[in-house]
Amino acid sequence: MQNNQQKILEVLKTNAYVSGETIAEQLSISRTAVWKHIKQLQQQGYEITAKPRKGYLLNQITDLPLEQEIQGGLKTSIIGKHIQYFSKVPSTNDVLKNLAKQGESEGTIIIAEEQTNARGRKNRYWNSPKEGLWFSILLRPHIPPQKAMLVTMIASISLTQAIHRTIGIKPIIKWPNDLLIQGKKVCGILTELSAEIDQIEYMLIGIGLNVNNAIPESLQSKSVSLKQSTHRHVSRVMLMQAICIAFDEWYEQLKKGCEEHIRSTWLSLSQIQGKTVEIKRELTTIKGIVKGIDLQGGLILESDQGIQHVLTGDIQYINNTS
Amino acid sequence: MQNNQQKILEVLKTNAYVSGETIAEQLSISRTAVWKHIKQLQQQGYEITAKPRKGYLLNQITDLPLEQEIQGGLKTSIIGKHIQYFSKVPSTNDVLKNLAKQGESEGTIIIAEEQTNARGRKNRYWNSPKEGLWFSILLRPHIPPQKAMLVTMIASISLTQAIHRTIGIKPIIKWPNDLLIQGKKVCGILTELSAEIDQIEYMLIGIGLNVNNAIPESLQSKSVSLKQSTHRHVSRVMLMQAICIAFDEWYEQLKKGCEEHIRSTWLSLSQIQGKTVEIKRELTTIKGIVKGIDLQGGLILESDQGIQHVLTGDIQYINNTS
Repeated sequence: MQNNQQKILEVLKTNAYVSGETIAEQLSISRTAVWKHIKQLQQQGYEITAKPRKGYLLNQITDLPLEQEIQGGLKTSIIGKHIQYFSKVPSTNDVLKNLAKQGESEGTIIIAEEQTNARGRKNRYWNSPKEGLWFSILLRPHIPPQKAMLVTMIASISLTQAIHRTIGIKPIIKWPNDLLIQGKKVCGILTELSAEIDQIEYMLIGIGLNVNNAIPESLQSKSVSLKQSTHRHVSRVMLMQAICIAFDEWYEQLKKGCEEHIRSTWLSLSQIQGKTVEIKRELTTIKGIVKGIDLQGGLILESDQGIQHVLTGDIQYINNTS
Repeated sequence: MQNNQQKILEVLKTNAYVSGETIAEQLSISRTAVWKHIKQLQQQGYEITAKPRKGYLLNQITDLPLEQEIQGGLKTSIIGKHIQYFSKVPSTNDVLKNLAKQGESEGTIIIAEEQTNARGRKNRYWNSPKEGLWFSILLRPHIPPQKAMLVTMIASISLTQAIHRTIGIKPIIKWPNDLLIQGKKVCGILTELSAEIDQIEYMLIGIGLNVNNAIPESLQSKSVSLKQSTHRHVSRVMLMQAICIAFDEWYEQLKKGCEEHIRSTWLSLSQIQGKTVEIKRELTTIKGIVKGIDLQGGLILESDQGIQHVLTGDIQYINNTS
């Protein structure tokens, strides 16, 4: 956002009606310039009315998750220090990957109103129309790739807590990387990483969160939005701020080496311990009772073959009637 | 290499003196064209003499690790199915990374006579003048990043066995990624990977092996070449073939899931079990006795604080006089 536009927005936010003349004088620009900026703000979704002899009034801020709205008053030390908003990109992970390769510092977020070529894990299609939250966070943790799953774990924990704090509903974490509300997917996390054998170079945490976006008919049986869950419109700006704050706190925990705290919090939020599950992998399917999760993010399963640590696969809960 | 040049080389390899006229007739090209190809082969290091009325004689094949020499008679199923030789590149890993992103299949090797901007682990300088073996192998194993160290382990094992088979000296593996002969570094491995949280997209195994190259005075105290160790010139082509064969076998083991076999072989070739070591990390140094290595490549250390699994750091052996 341009500097003058930002200033006009601040004037409107802190005043009731302000005349174009007053704004023009304050900023030393022409009244036409003021009018052009107002026009652009309106295009960004800010509801601004103009009354003769009274001036401009900001009725409502935009619903778009614009960087200046998310960053307004946000006090985080790493996450969201730099945010870039796009109205449409192929994939926020891809945009951020290019920045990462050029040395962008950690904490940077790319957020888009729409993704045209988004994907989930294993290159699966990810629906990302308007009114959801589609964003990617860049991290450069000082850990080896063996521990990368800890980062996905703090992402899941942060999202769960942020959603809970914002709308009062607590999703359940589904291993390895989804959040569910009443059994339906509300959020997916796609973690990508570039590393040497004992040091991660960068990680991209791609997050797709169904907020106010419509869920297509074909996905209704397995996906849900926060709007559907709460029966009301959810402020994406407030939710994004809550996510940045929670993520910032948990990333601090990771940096301090509180791996056990992360592991146990994840386990409690997943409600998976003691459940009977089936994990489908490329060639085999493993069935067993979940005993816990290890620090590599591997599910500890008790199966017919004894205790196994499962690092990858698609999980399904089995009704435990025995 | 051009098709006709390859054909001329084959004719020279399977015959004593052959006249330019005979070659020209066989290939349906002019005698001048034959002469030009011979000239280029000589520039590639093939020792070809020409005698009046007798013709051309191949005295010795090139010492350069050219693709056609390495691939001649090589029967591997994945490793080295495609090899590209360069006389000079900044870094073979970087060349291969670009190919990997474009979908190059696994097993491809980039090899260079000289690297101008090579690096070791943690961006450390890696000396790579002429007459060494500087190459990178592309792999796409179906494993999660937590298990990436298994690939570095099979690289170390394959190199140790190939060197042993070729020159009769068996290097020792130094955790996590070097080979030593009489305590000096003869080979370094730089593993880079790109992954999703539960699936590696590609891995680059960058290998720097001191063969016949000169070791600068400043590195003499800690580095050694195979030529210094054996007091004779070592055929890089034969060595590369042995490496491809060994790596191909061990990669097959990895694909079959023989992780325990890889782990125990690595452990025996490292001779590290029972040794007292000090591992320097960013902020701390850990001292302890090595009890083994886990499947994530973490050293299992018995220290004052009990048993620890150490995934990263610089290791130093301590004289165990107790």
